[in-house]
Amino acid sequence: MVNLREDERLDYLLAEDLRIIQSPNVFSFSLDAVLLARFVWVPIQKGRIVDLCSGNGVIPLFLSARTKGSITGVEIQERLYDMAVRSIDYNNLEDRLHMIHGDLKDAPKELGYEKYDVVTCNPPYFPTQSKEEINLNEHLAIARHEILCTLEDAIKSSSQLVKQGGKVAFVHRPGRLIDIIEMMRKYRLEPKRIQFVYPKAGKEANTLLVEAIKDGSPDLKILEPLTVYDENNEYTPIIKEMLYGSK
Amino acid sequence: MVNLREDERLDYLLAEDLRIIQSPNVFSFSLDAVLLARFVWVPIQKGRIVDLCSGNGVIPLFLSARTKGSITGVEIQERLYDMAVRSIDYNNLEDRLHMIHGDLKDAPKELGYEKYDVVTCNPPYFPTQSKEEINLNEHLAIARHEILCTLEDAIKSSSQLVKQGGKVAFVHRPGRLIDIIEMMRKYRLEPKRIQFVYPKAGKEANTLLVEAIKDGSPDLKILEPLTVYDENNEYTPIIKEMLYGSK
Repeated sequence: MVNLREDERLDYLLAEDLRIIQSPNVFSFSLDAVLLARFVWVPIQKGRIVDLCSGNGVIPLFLSARTKGSITGVEIQERLYDMAVRSIDYNNLEDRLHMIHGDLKDAPKELGYEKYDVVTCNPPYFPTQSKEEINLNEHLAIARHEILCTLEDAIKSSSQLVKQGGKVAFVHRPGRLIDIIEMMRKYRLEPKRIQFVYPKAGKEANTLLVEAIKDGSPDLKILEPLTVYDENNEYTPIIKEMLYGSK
Repeated sequence: MVNLREDERLDYLLAEDLRIIQSPNVFSFSLDAVLLARFVWVPIQKGRIVDLCSGNGVIPLFLSARTKGSITGVEIQERLYDMAVRSIDYNNLEDRLHMIHGDLKDAPKELGYEKYDVVTCNPPYFPTQSKEEINLNEHLAIARHEILCTLEDAIKSSSQLVKQGGKVAFVHRPGRLIDIIEMMRKYRLEPKRIQFVYPKAGKEANTLLVEAIKDGSPDLKILEPLTVYDENNEYTPIIKEMLYGSK
């Protein structure tokens, strides 16, 4: 029923009753992708969504449970693209979910300018400064470092893809907040909702969720804080519900 | 021992064992001032601090318990300046606390360029758009609306006053986050620490604390969230401690 390569697993997306192909050697989705898929506004009945830096398709898969619209994932690494295609197939979502194997910088030319209601992106977080810092595993390095795309590339493409009034949502590290805000504004994306995620009570935030509206008016809201672990280092109820559902 | 005008009260700053002259008709300090006075980094043994938009001197009074350095408050409204002077006098802090009656735009010329270790500011929050929106009480209107100084005026003066490597801390509304960040960077102030304050669990933030370093390198931290009221609408322990001390 599903072709798995030797290092791959068929994991559950428990909260959504879906399954996803992963490989610890190549790519496994992170909590950040789940947080973004839950944070972003989506049209429920119809609409067109693009997910950039889609990896193994985790965000399209999660979003498929929140919207009946079409979702296009863009992934530059063929190995991950291929995992995403097989996961979509396995979950019988080919009618609504599509993967594109390509560079997000070419996505607007291929998919059309200002045609999408929503763009999501969980980009590589780490600037590529020195060779030594970069993960030696090429697949993981490309997913984590700004090797094949910079934050600005991702924001620029998002802005070109999204309609006026449409939404663009990113997940990133809080240390890049200022860069993200400045770049979003440069490309006509006005940040409207920000949520910070804290690993534990009393700790600094380690994740940033931001949603902007193309050509929106300035009016930023900082949503309630999200905390991931409780004092016993177990997931908090809200995170458990995201990951395992409310059953 | 203290001259109070007819509408004034001598209130306690309980946590600091100080007293402060206030008047509900003219100016009473807000929780935001207390939050800023606690949030900002201050040198403990010595140093020079300026507080802009100082009102009745609440921030200098609070800071006097955290530092042995000198603190200069700048206030444009003579009535509030006068209240601050009498409060400083009443608390016998004239050797370390000084008030200047004047416009913050002139402060760098009068007090000196790049001579201060720390600048604090709790500026008016509301843009002055229409006459109708403005508070009819002139004292309160000037304290709350950007009538006599804009956010940019306050940030520009702060940057001129502070040394390279010195700190500038503001309290404001989260809706102005982007403006504050952009203006701070314009005036060589790099935001390094931000803390959001939430009225209750599950609510959006309604207050923003930000501290920048002049000519600092980009490296922003989002501190743990602060919540003001618990589910019974009572102050949370951390706020009680700020207001009433830990006794």
